[in-house]
Order: sequence, then structure tokens, then C-alpha cells
Amino acid sequence: MKKIINDKGNVLEDMLKGIEYAHPEYLKKIEEGNVLVRKNKSVNKVALVSGGGSGHEPAHAGYVGYGMLDGAVCGEVFTSPTPDQVYEGIKAVDNGKGVLLVVKNYTGDIMNFDMAKEMAEMEGIEVETVVVNDDVAVEDSLYTAGRRGIAGTVFVHKIAGAMAENGADLLEVKRVAEKVITNVRSMGMALSSCIVPAAGKANFELGEDEVEIGMGIHGEPGTHREKISTADSIVEHLMERILTNMDIEQGEEVAVMVNGLASTPFMELYIVNKKVHEILGEREIKVHRTFVGEYMTALEMAGFSISILKLDEELKGLLDEKADTPAMKVFK
Amino acid sequence: MKKIINDKGNVLEDMLKGIEYAHPEYLKKIEEGNVLVRKNKSVNKVALVSGGGSGHEPAHAGYVGYGMLDGAVCGEVFTSPTPDQVYEGIKAVDNGKGVLLVVKNYTGDIMNFDMAKEMAEMEGIEVETVVVNDDVAVEDSLYTAGRRGIAGTVFVHKIAGAMAENGADLLEVKRVAEKVITNVRSMGMALSSCIVPAAGKANFELGEDEVEIGMGIHGEPGTHREKISTADSIVEHLMERILTNMDIEQGEEVAVMVNGLASTPFMELYIVNKKVHEILGEREIKVHRTFVGEYMTALEMAGFSISILKLDEELKGLLDEKADTPAMKVFK
Repeated sequence: MKKIINDKGNVLEDMLKGIEYAHPEYLKKIEEGNVLVRKNKSVNKVALVSGGGSGHEPAHAGYVGYGMLDGAVCGEVFTSPTPDQVYEGIKAVDNGKGVLLVVKNYTGDIMNFDMAKEMAEMEGIEVETVVVNDDVAVEDSLYTAGRRGIAGTVFVHKIAGAMAENGADLLEVKRVAEKVITNVRSMGMALSSCIVPAAGKANFELGEDEVEIGMGIHGEPGTHREKISTADSIVEHLMERILTNMDIEQGEEVAVMVNGLASTPFMELYIVNKKVHEILGEREIKVHRTFVGEYMTALEMAGFSISILKLDEELKGLLDEKADTPAMKVFK
Repeated sequence: MKKIINDKGNVLEDMLKGIEYAHPEYLKKIEEGNVLVRKNKSVNKVALVSGGGSGHEPAHAGYVGYGMLDGAVCGEVFTSPTPDQVYEGIKAVDNGKGVLLVVKNYTGDIMNFDMAKEMAEMEGIEVETVVVNDDVAVEDSLYTAGRRGIAGTVFVHKIAGAMAENGADLLEVKRVAEKVITNVRSMGMALSSCIVPAAGKANFELGEDEVEIGMGIHGEPGTHREKISTADSIVEHLMERILTNMDIEQGEEVAVMVNGLASTPFMELYIVNKKVHEILGEREIKVHRTFVGEYMTALEMAGFSISILKLDEELKGLLDEKADTPAMKVFK
């Protein structure tokens, strides 16, 4: 295991300290629960909380800031935060307008966020939950019933965050978050596995010329392994799967996210993006906005995912609203 | 060689197409010379051009946009652009106020940017050059006389870009660029090498438990190899070298950049950042702004560099000015 860390029992603590030091203009850590919240608490708006296991940075702490999240709850590496942690997050950000929880579809996350919701409701805080399940690769994976939630979650943060910033009430923010979830589909591939520090070894191994198609962001098995081919043919396969799982026709508009899982250089992400745009062009689907970079990673895994979000006028407008967070900034 | 590419002879062409498709709101490719320029040409301001070999993305194309560069000239992977290419870039962005070339200190780049400067001057375009040499690791490296230029270059783009946007003339923009160069120092380390696609194999190899300290962003040899230790002890060593090479005292202010070379996850970059801030704190040096992410990469190399820029009031003000580019956005 070759990692730039100190004690493998302290990676989360060290990382959170490093995040706080890096972004004091955006966020701070509260006393309890490894929760990062906005530096200045929002007033008079619905608050958004997301989170999950760590190891997917910049998700979710990197999205705490204007126009996106109010709080990010950071579990241990690839481990759901506890109900107590999520409850601390909810309490810290609520300002009376209610809290929306954005949860990725993993059994542990769902259970723990739900318990936290109940705890908060007993204290009189209004809480709603949405569950992101954008990954079309497989149904019923290692830690999931139904489809997994992956990088498409960032579109939920962006768009529901803008809706909240605009003053919508909790049910309206939830409605638009669910509209994003209905309209976003993703799928990924990996060139290599990743190592949970505490485990010290990779959770799967790939041969020198082998890739895994459709694996999850914790290394959950995908649809199959194959010999590595060209970027174009890999993208064709992923896009075919994604578009088949969407209700989309020529003339419609989308947002594209080409997300690096950690060890894939920008050069290769842009080569992927070229083919994504060519395929959408052939189908006469218009791209409104493209994101290329590392938005939801998997420790040091090499590989990428593609997310396609079908847009209508409402989603387009909210996607284009100002966001100012460490990991995503949009100038209006 | 496990890369997400198509024909290894076409990586540059494919990547540039992918960059154009990703960022049409910021930039476009001109007819000749693999040059990316701002979508809307600047009028009545000094234009900034940078560039060099490709493989360091998002440098430099990712910095084309408001408040930073006007053009980026993209050579083949790890290969200086030709004088003709640079000349095309200069011609494309000049609007009568003159052009500043920001060049990293590599012999090929210096020679070719200089020839392009002469070609442009013969056409009556006013051109000045600054040479960035922030890497304190070694003197007189594989492709360099003197110190190499690495991630500190991004601070030059940011600050000189803001100065140009504010309407300063060419010599004033050059002055402030040189002030950044005088005040910025960097050093890096690698956990792994990288593979130039056309070569197909790594230019150096590291053992399972070995790291290279002070290597360059093309895999040029560093100061030494050692067994991997803790993040803290590696950072201590790099910071000692950086601060020894700077004229800095307690009470002064700096900007920090923790730059991933490509395959180092955010988690580890933040763990590095924690120690950087602790060391600066012990020395009572105040951090004005921190950048953690991938700003100047080395194909798929794992590792990072630290850059420290000493600030005065002028540099601080310019660093805080608005920038809106694909790879760096600053809200004023």
C-alpha cells in the first residue's frame, strides 16, 4: 500500500483538518460527528445535507457552500456515517425552514440517514429525503438494493441547492431534487482497484490489460471484465447503456459530467469527453453544459464515469445559477 | 501501458477536441498551431500566452479565460511547441496592447518562445517574456539550465492575468509577473512514474515501497529516492527545502498550492495540506488563500508538489481578483 498518509487509523481526522485549513472561507467543522458546515449558517432557506463514507472527495465536503450544500457528514472510509453523526449535521444547519437529505442508494446510508431523520423530527425539525440511484450498470449490487448512487449526485446538490437558495420551500426543493434523480443516468469503468487504508489491500485485482466495466465507486463488481480497447469503444458501450436507460429524444438538451475516479489524468478524461459529445451530436442531443474533472472519486482508483442529465427549462435555469463551493463554482 | 486513449499518435488531437467540446463558453481552437484562445478576444488589454508540452492538463488550456490567459499553445506530449505554433498564438490574441509570454524554464520552451517573440516583433507586435523557475529541488536538470518551472506557474497566470485585466500596460504586467516568480518556490515528490503514450513505457521505475523526492513534472530525476515514510515527514522535508530557498519571516503572508500530479487522491492532498498549514503556523506565517487540487499534472504520475507564494498587498489584491476559467475560478 503506497499512500501519502500518516497513521492509517487517522486518515479521516487528518483529511478533515486539511479540508478545514484549505477552505476556511467556505466551511468549518462542528464539534461533533465529523460534519462540515458552511462558515456562515444560512438563514431563512431550506438546508441541504449530504454525506456518506469518505474516500470520494471532493464529495461531499467540497460542495458545501453557496448554491449547493449546507452540510456534509463524513463517515469513515467507505463506511456510512452513523445516525448520530447525520443528526448532528441536521441540527447544525436547520434554520427553521427544514432540511433535505441527499442520500446515495447504499443500504447502510439509507438506514442511518432515515434514523437520523426520525431523531430530528422528534426534535421538531422538518426533514425530507431523496435517494440518488443514477448508476445503470447493475441492479442489486454489493451494498445496494436497486441501482447504486454515484456521480450524478453532484447534479442533485447543484440544482436542489440553487432551488433552496432561491427561497423555495422544502417540498419544492425535494420535488426538483427528485426531478434530477428521474433524469440523470451514469455508468463507469475502472483500470485499477483501490485500497481502503485500514484494510491495506485492494478489494479486487485487474490484469495488466484488463478493465472492469460498470464497477461501483467502492469497487463493487460491475457487469464484466474485458481486455482494454480504445477510449472510443469503451465510451460507446457506456453511452449505449446510459441512453437506453433514459427517456430521451433528438432535439432535447442535456448536461454532461465526465468524472475521474482519481487516477485518470485530465488528458484521458478529455479524450472520453470528445467521444461523449460526438455520440450526443450524432443523436442530435444538444449539450447545454459540460463538467470534466474529479467530482466523485473512489480513493486512488483509475477510471471514470459518465453522467448524463436530461434538462428542461427549470433544470437548465437552476444548473446555471451561481454556485461558489470549493469543488464547484459556477458564475451566473 | 494502460491508458484510456485511441490511436497513440492522436492523443493530442483527441484531447484538444475534448477540451473544446467541454468548454465552448470559455475557449476555441484556432485554425493553426494547436492553440486555444478565449472565445471572445480581449480588446484593449495586454494579452497573456503560455504553453509548453502537453500532458500537464489542466495546464495551460484550463487557464484560458477571464482574469488569466488569453491563449495556450499546446505542444506534443512533453514536447515544446514549435516557434511557428507560439507565433500563431501571439498573433491570435494580440489586440495592439502587446503580449506577455509566460514560459516555464525548459531549454526547448525558452528557445522556441524566444524565436516566436522575434517573429512577432518583426510583424510589429510588442512581446515580453517571463521565465518561471520555482522548483527548488535541483539546479540544471535533464531539460533545464537553472531551476525548473512547475506548478508555481499557475500563480503567475492568475496574478499577471488580473493585472492585465485591470488595464496595466505590458511592462507593468511583466513587472508583476516577475514579482510572482521572485516570490514563489515549489518542490514535489512522486510515488510512481508516467508513460508518454508514443514511448509506451515509463521513463523511470520505483520500487513497491520507494518514492522519488524532488523529481520534475516530466519524470526528471529528483534529489534522491527513499523508502516511503509518513505524509508528515515527507511534507516536513519539502517545506524545509522550500522555505530555506525563500526570503520569508514570521508575520508575513503566503498563498499555498498543494498540487496533485494526477494519480494522488484528494484525500491524500488534504492530508498533505494539513501538515503544510501546521508548519506555516509554527513559523507564524499566515496563509491568505489555499489551493488544493490538480493544477499542473504529469500524465498519470502519482505524487504532489507544494508551492508557496510570498504575498505583499499588491499580490494579495491581484490573487483575490475575479478569475473565470475552466480550471480556476475565483469569486471576488
